[in-house]
Amino acid sequence: MPQAHAARRALAAAAATELGADAALITAGVNVRYLTGLVSSNAALLLPADGAAVLATDSRYAVTAARDCADLEIVIEQYLEPALAGIAAGRGYRLLAFEAQEMTVQRHHALAGAYDGELELVPLGPVVEDLRMVKDEAEIGALARACAITGEAFTAVLGWLRPGVTERQLAVVLERTMVDLGADAPAFDTIVASGPNGAIPHHVPGQREFENGDLVTVDCGAIFRGYHADMTRTVAVGQPGSWERDIYRLVAEAQAAGVAAAVAGAEVAAVDATAREMIAAAGHGEHFGHGVGHGVGLEIHEAPAIGRGRPGTLRDRVPVTIEPGVYVPGSGGVRIEDTLVVRAGAGAAGRPQLLTTITRELLVL
Amino acid sequence: MPQAHAARRALAAAAATELGADAALITAGVNVRYLTGLVSSNAALLLPADGAAVLATDSRYAVTAARDCADLEIVIEQYLEPALAGIAAGRGYRLLAFEAQEMTVQRHHALAGAYDGELELVPLGPVVEDLRMVKDEAEIGALARACAITGEAFTAVLGWLRPGVTERQLAVVLERTMVDLGADAPAFDTIVASGPNGAIPHHVPGQREFENGDLVTVDCGAIFRGYHADMTRTVAVGQPGSWERDIYRLVAEAQAAGVAAAVAGAEVAAVDATAREMIAAAGHGEHFGHGVGHGVGLEIHEAPAIGRGRPGTLRDRVPVTIEPGVYVPGSGGVRIEDTLVVRAGAGAAGRPQLLTTITRELLVL
Repeated sequence: MPQAHAARRALAAAAATELGADAALITAGVNVRYLTGLVSSNAALLLPADGAAVLATDSRYAVTAARDCADLEIVIEQYLEPALAGIAAGRGYRLLAFEAQEMTVQRHHALAGAYDGELELVPLGPVVEDLRMVKDEAEIGALARACAITGEAFTAVLGWLRPGVTERQLAVVLERTMVDLGADAPAFDTIVASGPNGAIPHHVPGQREFENGDLVTVDCGAIFRGYHADMTRTVAVGQPGSWERDIYRLVAEAQAAGVAAAVAGAEVAAVDATAREMIAAAGHGEHFGHGVGHGVGLEIHEAPAIGRGRPGTLRDRVPVTIEPGVYVPGSGGVRIEDTLVVRAGAGAAGRPQLLTTITRELLVL
Repeated sequence: MPQAHAARRALAAAAATELGADAALITAGVNVRYLTGLVSSNAALLLPADGAAVLATDSRYAVTAARDCADLEIVIEQYLEPALAGIAAGRGYRLLAFEAQEMTVQRHHALAGAYDGELELVPLGPVVEDLRMVKDEAEIGALARACAITGEAFTAVLGWLRPGVTERQLAVVLERTMVDLGADAPAFDTIVASGPNGAIPHHVPGQREFENGDLVTVDCGAIFRGYHADMTRTVAVGQPGSWERDIYRLVAEAQAAGVAAAVAGAEVAAVDATAREMIAAAGHGEHFGHGVGHGVGLEIHEAPAIGRGRPGTLRDRVPVTIEPGVYVPGSGGVRIEDTLVVRAGAGAAGRPQLLTTITRELLVL
């Protein structure tokens, strides 16, 4: 999508211009990818308010950069930031906007010291992160495919949810199935938390074998063309007890309410509160510590964060997760999570577009 | 290893004391793991020169932290750095050493602003990274197992190196085999670069099918108990041409020389030069852009960096990679890489201990 990348660069450059900067220095790898298309673990971009953008990467990515970013000036250097700052100084730039949310204090100190009196560094702010938050339909298409693969893989491995299978075995077969179905890779380390481990929201799947009556929380996602799906389902291995059924129903209702609240114009704190207050009203407020959701895209966690006291409102074409949970130490837990796209519009057109579509009813296997 | 963790914390605290700091604020996740044993994507540690250390993490890791870090004071908070800085200020600390190599300019600005006049922030320097560089025998044991798994998996998938199999198919089966053999996970995205793609040092495995006469570069590694193996072999699918044999021989000789040079007391720049000069003397200097190697451990790339002009010397019990390559754009390339442990001592005791042991002769499959 070279045209999309050029348009994104124009928007980011305009934001730098508004700050009075001569150029922006983009150093967050995922932001460089978003603005150039280059997939690299080591790349940076000099984005002038006016003039040619310069992509810097190291020799390992020289061939890839020449192939994928033919519309950019490319420099191959081991030390990217000094190289781009040198080009900026050489072009007579004075004010350089940098990504203070990514650049470390140490790198900033080195850069400011090397060009003391020549370049002035000013924080760019989350300009690229804000651009990334609202997706175009091509991005939503990639994310939808990632979510579809996730659902297909989850369905395909349901047969492994039986007594005697370990958490880790399920995690491994689920990740492999996602890859077999076309995922670039898993979007994150799959969580499989069974029985009492369900009380650990980010449990690392281990050697525990599923037992009859267990609730099992499975949090998984595929990457497709760089875009990260995120889905959680909690299922039962054999008939669960009434306690498990009660918290399942509570979380399912809170999750559905959170999804319904995720409309364009809604404050993220209000979306969080919608689900959280239902859980608190049922006496489980202390058993739900994390935020209700987060943006997804080129990263598994990106803007906006949906949590208590978080600022901001949801906008059209913003994909987010809604994932309340209840975790009772020593006993177990439930989490249900969907990835959806916030949509603007009247009536049905303005309803959240669910990308993960596996049933939210309690599956008893 | 709670005792090992406590001993590491004592060393790190002593280094903070030398700076005159009242405490160190450890925010690099892998450093927190090294000092506490906690595996978490969100944790920080307040390490006083004198007094109880405090581990902060969020509610997702509360149960894990209580289980794995029973010897530490634990606080569960969403915002770790303000929580720990508040504790530091409450204890009357004035000078707080922070990890400038990890903390972003933005977080530093927020922290310094919130405790202006109460806490002074001073860079700790790479204290924990330096501690991590020299491994104990338990760490080397874990790394050796990671390397053994890597080699077993590589051997097991050699049958896939035949015409018609794609780069991606080989990468997927190799990663799965590592996991089946006991790896926690792959240490990084496996590189499989065949034929002309061999000219791209960090090629992403794609749909290209192996062809008769191809050289195929496979760069892979397993993680075992957090420790990262790193190994590259270049093999031939059918008989390669004389050009391919020539660069293979060159890289193999340069790699062997680099390995032999990796002894305690050697300057890292000299180790790099040993391999680099052989490649340059053969007329391929411009076809070898990256450094000769790097430290490995809890991260796939850690101190020391072994490259042109890099500072420092190798020390006893430092695991590193030695991985020269020759990459000819449009034609192909060769890289050979081992993970080894630098050892001190006279004679054989001081020779590098190779942890990856697959043959470095050209395998023609």
